[in-house]
Amino acid sequence: MGVRGSFDVRTSSRLEMVDITRHVRDAVASHAAGDGWCTVYVPHTTAGVTINEGADPDVASDILDALERIVPSGGSYRHREGNAAAHVKASLVGSSARVPIEGGRLALGTWQAIFFCEFDGPRSRTVLFDVS
Amino acid sequence: MGVRGSFDVRTSSRLEMVDITRHVRDAVASHAAGDGWCTVYVPHTTAGVTINEGADPDVASDILDALERIVPSGGSYRHREGNAAAHVKASLVGSSARVPIEGGRLALGTWQAIFFCEFDGPRSRTVLFDVS
Amino acid sequence: MGVRGSFDVRTSSRLEMVDITRHVRDAVASHAAGDGWCTVYVPHTTAGVTINEGADPDVASDILDALERIVPSGGSYRHREGNAAAHVKASLVGSSARVPIEGGRLALGTWQAIFFCEFDGPRSRTVLFDVS
Repeated sequence: MGVRGSFDVRTSSRLEMVDITRHVRDAVASHAAGDGWCTVYVPHTTAGVTINEGADPDVASDILDALERIVPSGGSYRHREGNAAAHVKASLVGSSARVPIEGGRLALGTWQAIFFCEFDGPRSRTVLFDVS
Repeated sequence: MGVRGSFDVRTSSRLEMVDITRHVRDAVASHAAGDGWCTVYVPHTTAGVTINEGADPDVASDILDALERIVPSGGSYRHREGNAAAHVKASLVGSSARVPIEGGRLALGTWQAIFFCEFDGPRSRTVLFDVS
Repeated sequence: MGVRGSFDVRTSSRLEMVDITRHVRDAVASHAAGDGWCTVYVPHTTAGVTINEGADPDVASDILDALERIVPSGGSYRHREGNAAAHVKASLVGSSARVPIEGGRLALGTWQAIFFCEFDGPRSRTVLFDVS
């Protein structure tokens, strides 16, 4: 059991990857001491969280484009709300991620950033974090 | 280190998503106090676990159908046991999921449910959980 | 907060799944007492970690082949470094995995092995583990 909290993310497109590294880094800096883990959890079913390159924004675009090719929004689905593809994408990407903390600081790899993945925006979303 | 246990899931189709939220909720209710996490772990290589919408069963069907389009069971694979696609699907979905616990209760998002994902049934399966 | 460390993995192909179960098992055996979890974390953005069958090496080949069909290396991407597909694959597979520890030993399922997934090799890579 650790220290936990949440922050809001406001997305502006249907498909969007929002770099939330700074939010998570700040949360860790204010709560953590020593080594541990930060768990990031998305309580939504048409969004997810992933860790990938943050330096070149084209990488996030490529991930969204590839997911759209794999699971097209305009495909044929049973779920009648029009966002079935978003649900599938959420399960491919996953609803939580863990990042190591070392010496009270987020210990991401050199090129790693944490992304909130919006698959059915624009919406107001919540991200939970836990530092332990 | 937390309190852990397991429960069995009996699947009835080759591809099936079984809502195990009640099982996990009961496990948490009987073990947890305060805040923490429940980790759900699948010790199989042709099954997985995911969190997605539980209200409309069409969402689970769409996820299974999309995975089957992405990784067709009848495709060409090297593994000779006839279930190669099930192994691939397992790695796409993942073998564990975490759900926050708040005040001793599972704190899923409004629409979230926990699904055991069967990709090579019907079988008797085991799901591990850990409350900490 | 647990005992943590890292080990290096040297990959020899562009796409490769390296069975790191022995590394993780040794780490757990030397650090753990009782029950807990081992978290395996990959601090890279063109690699991942997954749990799947280790007995037949064809399964790992099938996973790599399927991922290549889903996200072709030679596809059209914006990211100009030539490894966009590797980034997408990393987000599909994920950057961390958890394995239960029981009685001080890694408690993988009968057929489960832990694989470092190289999507942009050959390279020298690092894998972090945490036993808690």
